[in-house]
Amino acid sequence: MNTRWWQNKVAQPSEAHAERARLQQAQLTKPAGSLGQLEALAVQLAAMQASEQPRLERLTIAIFAADHGVVAEGVSAYPQAVTAQMLANFAQGGAAISVLAQDLHADMQLHALGLATPLGDLAGVRHWQIAPGTANLRRQQAMTPEQCIRAMAAGREVVLQAAGRGCELFIGGEMGIGNTTAACALACALLDQPAKALVGPGTGLNAKGVVHKAAVIDQALALHRPACNEPFDWLCHVGGLELAALVGAYISAAQLALPVLVDGYIASAAALCAARLNPSSRDWWLFSHQGAEPGHAALLAALQAEPLLHLGLRLGEGSGAALAVPLLRQTCLLHNRMASFASAGVARGLA
Amino acid sequence: MNTRWWQNKVAQPSEAHAERARLQQAQLTKPAGSLGQLEALAVQLAAMQASEQPRLERLTIAIFAADHGVVAEGVSAYPQAVTAQMLANFAQGGAAISVLAQDLHADMQLHALGLATPLGDLAGVRHWQIAPGTANLRRQQAMTPEQCIRAMAAGREVVLQAAGRGCELFIGGEMGIGNTTAACALACALLDQPAKALVGPGTGLNAKGVVHKAAVIDQALALHRPACNEPFDWLCHVGGLELAALVGAYISAAQLALPVLVDGYIASAAALCAARLNPSSRDWWLFSHQGAEPGHAALLAALQAEPLLHLGLRLGEGSGAALAVPLLRQTCLLHNRMASFASAGVARGLA
Repeated sequence: MNTRWWQNKVAQPSEAHAERARLQQAQLTKPAGSLGQLEALAVQLAAMQASEQPRLERLTIAIFAADHGVVAEGVSAYPQAVTAQMLANFAQGGAAISVLAQDLHADMQLHALGLATPLGDLAGVRHWQIAPGTANLRRQQAMTPEQCIRAMAAGREVVLQAAGRGCELFIGGEMGIGNTTAACALACALLDQPAKALVGPGTGLNAKGVVHKAAVIDQALALHRPACNEPFDWLCHVGGLELAALVGAYISAAQLALPVLVDGYIASAAALCAARLNPSSRDWWLFSHQGAEPGHAALLAALQAEPLLHLGLRLGEGSGAALAVPLLRQTCLLHNRMASFASAGVARGLA
Repeated sequence: MNTRWWQNKVAQPSEAHAERARLQQAQLTKPAGSLGQLEALAVQLAAMQASEQPRLERLTIAIFAADHGVVAEGVSAYPQAVTAQMLANFAQGGAAISVLAQDLHADMQLHALGLATPLGDLAGVRHWQIAPGTANLRRQQAMTPEQCIRAMAAGREVVLQAAGRGCELFIGGEMGIGNTTAACALACALLDQPAKALVGPGTGLNAKGVVHKAAVIDQALALHRPACNEPFDWLCHVGGLELAALVGAYISAAQLALPVLVDGYIASAAALCAARLNPSSRDWWLFSHQGAEPGHAALLAALQAEPLLHLGLRLGEGSGAALAVPLLRQTCLLHNRMASFASAGVARGLA
């Protein structure tokens, strides 16, 4: 394995299948374009799966949990212990993503990459424990390059195993108190923006808290800028273990020709970093929603993403992606099962 | 039955259950507000169903089909025969709504209110045949008051039967070549707007076609204005049989405390008319999506609606509502099944 495996070549969606899917869409008994965004989505899925009958029944939802040293700066509305507590809640089926994953018949996986609070063994949780959370990015480098590479490799391993089991759609979720701060810092670095352009309340800071969070991020950006020459450096310096795992997962999914459905703000920041590390990997990602975090729109714009949902979500966990899965499945059904004008004996329009 | 039964009192959603649902939402293991629009939706569903465990498993999708005399003015990209052809396609399972309804395990019903093209008997289609389509609204009154009342009563009867079978959510779909013209004329009349404010390409007119369609609508508005004093008059003069059926269905659903999921542009024009005939009925309607037809946003704004999806749809048939059903069901599941902070042992935030 190339030590920088994430630079390895990415698969190409099948242009031949895209073209066939376009022709198929034009035959279906509906005015051309009347299914809006779902028509291009059907074409994209057909191209990614190199199939005339795209399907998304086998779904993996892998949640990466990690803690953030920057919580010491008072940037979150929740105490750090909640990362581990929520991981236990995921495992026990009580969290939003647990409820949604069960309903979608998804293979839900829980990966503890680095918790600050000991969790003990819990059925269904894989412990990677790369570090007891990141260091405080306001004061020092969040991860060493080795830690970052281990977290990226964790994401890669999870995707490799999912692909090996016939997964048709990969969703990466995250849990980590403080991770909107890390995600925002990473996004600011990659988009060359000050914190105020991309910061937001996360799980629920008040206005004063948001101003403080922005100051922490700006200070971190100033601290790390001299040492950061490329996206990988920024990921190490201001990112997080779950962010790095998502970056690794998104790129390896693209290398394996496995479609990804990206969740919210954190996941989109990871996707932006992944796109900077390996631009072609972007072709394999669908975007589920634009959330309430103010900077999410800018992240999506930078990724040229057209998210499916706009519901003001700001939960993370992969929940926004899970909420969009039925739309993707309906898109496949419509593409695969609708009658053609010819077979149904319906006259075509003039348009 | 009051001859103007649509003015009869509407049921009231349960404020007690709304309050309990709000308390429940605040207990669930997620930051307050993090499920965005879906939180208010859960509260609304609990209130409408007067239940602590809202559910939307039993779903009726009733499609009302009718023809429009105004097609003679060249306002549609499709020939009139397509109304009957598509109804046959619905029955044979080949249309978008057929595919979606089957997937949702919905009770799908087909109601031919008035076709210009004879269809013959077709399994699953109920023939009301109130008129062979409407008259050309550019030249004369589209429906007599008696025809309009019969169409409204058809909608009412369909809803009564659905409610009697335990339906938990009612979707009204429509099919009628030319019906964006009727819907636009009705919306312009009710909102006191010129055609250009609300007109659009419908199934696919080009720019010149849209200008012509707007002129036809403005001429119709000028022709009928002297005779129209109230919303019911406008419904008769410029509406359509399927529009009247939807109006009747939406109001009687509200009278029976049955939640409605409103589809696209045509359905929203019918909902606006229903709200003008009986304002309290609005409390029972959820709005599935904002479509591509330019006037849809104005209709939704007039109804103070917050649609769930923005996918650029313009198909009708109830398809946009069907695409939103999984989100509603997921909303119920999250509300009913997520763990509370106390039961999961998760610390609350500061916010």
